[in-house]
Amino acid sequence: MKTNPAKMRALVQIERAIGHTFADQRLLVRALTHRSFSGDNNERFEFIGDAVLDYAVAKMLFDAFPKLSEGELSRLRANLVNEAVLAEIALEMNMGDALFLGPGELKSGGFNRPSILADALEAVFAAVSFDADFNTAEQVVRRLFAARVKTVDFKNQGKDAKTLLQEALQARRLALPKYRIEKQTGEGDDARFEVSCDLGELGFICSAEAGSRKAAEQQTAKEALAWLALNRPLKKAKK
Amino acid sequence: MKTNPAKMRALVQIERAIGHTFADQRLLVRALTHRSFSGDNNERFEFIGDAVLDYAVAKMLFDAFPKLSEGELSRLRANLVNEAVLAEIALEMNMGDALFLGPGELKSGGFNRPSILADALEAVFAAVSFDADFNTAEQVVRRLFAARVKTVDFKNQGKDAKTLLQEALQARRLALPKYRIEKQTGEGDDARFEVSCDLGELGFICSAEAGSRKAAEQQTAKEALAWLALNRPLKKAKK
Repeated sequence: MKTNPAKMRALVQIERAIGHTFADQRLLVRALTHRSFSGDNNERFEFIGDAVLDYAVAKMLFDAFPKLSEGELSRLRANLVNEAVLAEIALEMNMGDALFLGPGELKSGGFNRPSILADALEAVFAAVSFDADFNTAEQVVRRLFAARVKTVDFKNQGKDAKTLLQEALQARRLALPKYRIEKQTGEGDDARFEVSCDLGELGFICSAEAGSRKAAEQQTAKEALAWLALNRPLKKAKK
Repeated sequence: MKTNPAKMRALVQIERAIGHTFADQRLLVRALTHRSFSGDNNERFEFIGDAVLDYAVAKMLFDAFPKLSEGELSRLRANLVNEAVLAEIALEMNMGDALFLGPGELKSGGFNRPSILADALEAVFAAVSFDADFNTAEQVVRRLFAARVKTVDFKNQGKDAKTLLQEALQARRLALPKYRIEKQTGEGDDARFEVSCDLGELGFICSAEAGSRKAAEQQTAKEALAWLALNRPLKKAKK
């Protein structure tokens, strides 16, 4: 796979964007390999990358906001470390071109799917920590998140995904989402709800399953928010 | 506060147990200071310590179990990184004697409360990272968790806290817990449930609030499990 020149260029572009050149480029390839492509995929890397990311952003916020409480720091981190932001950063480095996807995902536009991009970016953080060390991976996160920490949005603190999605749609003068229970099984502690979220004329529908209707709705709203940020970006007003 | 010889001995015992002698012992004192004692307490440290812990245990599991999937690794980590285990480790180093608690918490046995002990231990991990660096803090976690990673319980993977509490009580031939809704406000997305969990003749009651009855019950079960592990430890059967 490394002989494909377009893919090679895409990999080099990732290395430039993160500021780390891999001694063992197989680690980078592994981080960019979706489970639809190979059993040797990035899923285990994500487990480590997620932890590297959480610590690195926690430390940045801890240092940047000495007056904030633990709860406030947690909420700020949730605003910064989520699928939508990770997918945005991944797109900025054209990660879609560097992904290794199976034929099904290729056809259905997986290179543009927020969850796939966000997972791959997390896996890249792990790959850097394996190729060099934890501190190098931490520095990569710091570089990528530096500007975002400076402009982190205190307004959205504590707002849930459904509220944020509603506001995001209103800001774009788009219709509100329709949530629907698609399936419900079990009762009490065993209850499972499958809920869909439909953005109407935008043509985006996603679904999620959880132990309560509310939790499933919140999950779909997160996915829809990430899709919206990528596919209907809002021009930022000058301050 | 450092002039109290008993407290000084307790602090030195913590340093021995974690294998790190502080250059700046004020960091250790801060990590052991509960919010009931002072505004300069350990709450912000916890935010960092939690992230250090999550990464360090993630990496240990990643290396120890090369065949496990991301989901299996996450569940194993949840078995290792929780209030009950953290409080157990804290008690093993007599952390209760080293805590700085306000008068109310002192009287009500706060030095023995799982949540206070677990939070303080997490804060200690942060204090080590500030006193030395991230890698030193990671090594402290590795030392404290090494034996537990080796004997991590695959059986309990994916079991929720209510199930674990029920099993823990049955193993001790104790009566099952009684959950009760104490208060319910709001509806739909704004609903809040306050639920209590009563262990009957053991004299332990705790309560928790969440957006669903189920979530609140799970929280109380976690707290009850931690209490049970500390106050009614089960003799381990020889294998």
